[in-house]
Amino acid sequence: MAEVIDGKRIAAEIRGEVKQAVDELAAKGVVPGLSVVLVGENPASAVYVRMKAKACEETGIKSEVIKMSEETTQAELEAVIDRLNADESVHGILVQLPLPPQIEEQDIIFRIAPEKDVDGFHPVSVGRMMIGDLTAFRSATPAGVVELLMRTGNDPSGKRVAIVGRSNIVGKPLSVLLSQKMKGGNATVTLAHSRTPDLPAVLREGDILVAAIGVPEFVKAESVKPGAVVIDVGVNRVDDDSTEKGYRLVGDVAYDEVFEIASAITPVPGGVGPMTIAMLLTNCIQAAREITGVS
Amino acid sequence: MAEVIDGKRIAAEIRGEVKQAVDELAAKGVVPGLSVVLVGENPASAVYVRMKAKACEETGIKSEVIKMSEETTQAELEAVIDRLNADESVHGILVQLPLPPQIEEQDIIFRIAPEKDVDGFHPVSVGRMMIGDLTAFRSATPAGVVELLMRTGNDPSGKRVAIVGRSNIVGKPLSVLLSQKMKGGNATVTLAHSRTPDLPAVLREGDILVAAIGVPEFVKAESVKPGAVVIDVGVNRVDDDSTEKGYRLVGDVAYDEVFEIASAITPVPGGVGPMTIAMLLTNCIQAAREITGVS
Repeated sequence: MAEVIDGKRIAAEIRGEVKQAVDELAAKGVVPGLSVVLVGENPASAVYVRMKAKACEETGIKSEVIKMSEETTQAELEAVIDRLNADESVHGILVQLPLPPQIEEQDIIFRIAPEKDVDGFHPVSVGRMMIGDLTAFRSATPAGVVELLMRTGNDPSGKRVAIVGRSNIVGKPLSVLLSQKMKGGNATVTLAHSRTPDLPAVLREGDILVAAIGVPEFVKAESVKPGAVVIDVGVNRVDDDSTEKGYRLVGDVAYDEVFEIASAITPVPGGVGPMTIAMLLTNCIQAAREITGVS
Repeated sequence: MAEVIDGKRIAAEIRGEVKQAVDELAAKGVVPGLSVVLVGENPASAVYVRMKAKACEETGIKSEVIKMSEETTQAELEAVIDRLNADESVHGILVQLPLPPQIEEQDIIFRIAPEKDVDGFHPVSVGRMMIGDLTAFRSATPAGVVELLMRTGNDPSGKRVAIVGRSNIVGKPLSVLLSQKMKGGNATVTLAHSRTPDLPAVLREGDILVAAIGVPEFVKAESVKPGAVVIDVGVNRVDDDSTEKGYRLVGDVAYDEVFEIASAITPVPGGVGPMTIAMLLTNCIQAAREITGVS
């Protein structure tokens, strides 16, 4: 039976550190500011944005949410980003994804000033992370996974890591972070995906297994090395009439059966999710320090 | 006994395609132009620069080599790059690495206009490659390895690939290219390195094995799965008094013993090396097309 990794508690610990950093900056006259842009009515996006705003409030980061209609044009959204790029009180800019279909997502991400790219999705951030630049913004979910491992005594150094899922926001950047010659890295990483033959055998090689494929309960016990540390990045809604909302959240891991053989496992919710928001806050602090030159 | 992969022949094939593309562009009034900046007296760098200039000449790309002294300052080199960035007849800029110690290499790479970054080392190029942007410049050596595999009937799709060496110019970007959901990708890649425990066992998992660790004859037969395709990216000088130059070139693979058990292997020299230069030329064509809008 696995130890349950308490992402909520660790995220709260990080938020405490962020609050202290905010207080120190405030004493020097700097109030870190985050602007979140929400386009359209996607209900999950609205929930995430509310959670981010709340976390900012708790830690003293000044946040604003700019809500734009579902019919927003490319030019209108670009104009908002240009204004935020130029606004000296804004240190971090986050455009909540996904965007409506009439918007060219990559062009929007590319338009954010790289020094304010707290989501870490701009090619400059991704490229700098990839070449091992420690000052790069690490995108929040992969950074949260690394932090979760390090703060639970599961340093990936010298371990084998199997990741399933090669997305731009989790699998690919995480494979680089865990491989690199730096603190939180030095693992031997295998990046597996939907086209990997005999996937269970490949995943069983991992002393640490990361599931980030976006399929409910995809990783069964047969894919887990006994004693492995299992990190579940997935957040999937599955219909469940027995709940008030009509759905429940499950991860990419078949929790109950994997719980029996892993040495540690993250729950969904309450595992990686809270870490993602906590790491976003640390990126905001980093942006405020770098832009103002106050540390 | 392995089939020897003839990188020279395949590179010549690609140069032929480049020449045709140059002729087509020339008919439309565009002459692709590459500027190579060589700082100092590193003899290996001088050789590489000569080879690149020669390949340009053969294919009709207009090249110039700007030689600067070993004592060049950061500001002097930056001024040259700024001039080349602004020069409309220059479509590709390549600063030969390594640079003398007084120069901050990353700042120089960052200063090259991303649309002229034919080496693919700028964070924007690396970031765009990483997120699967097909229009990104792929750095020449990783792109050359992918091309070599594809043109010898060794499509990595569905295969396991083991890479040893996690450098910014080979191991890390190659692991991404081979993993991605695109032509030349879809492999399951493990990125191994100096901190990987039981390295031979990990490398033996590879249907395709890529050695890019920069240590002469590092990969022995015990690290090779029988029947694997072995790609040797290493180019190391080892002392050899029996030769005229006093040294000979060897790869990162113990060629003679691995030759016995691999199904295919690249020689050093004559394997990946010529491919690197060929891919640089294709990047120059791409740059000229994108900058001029003529295709």
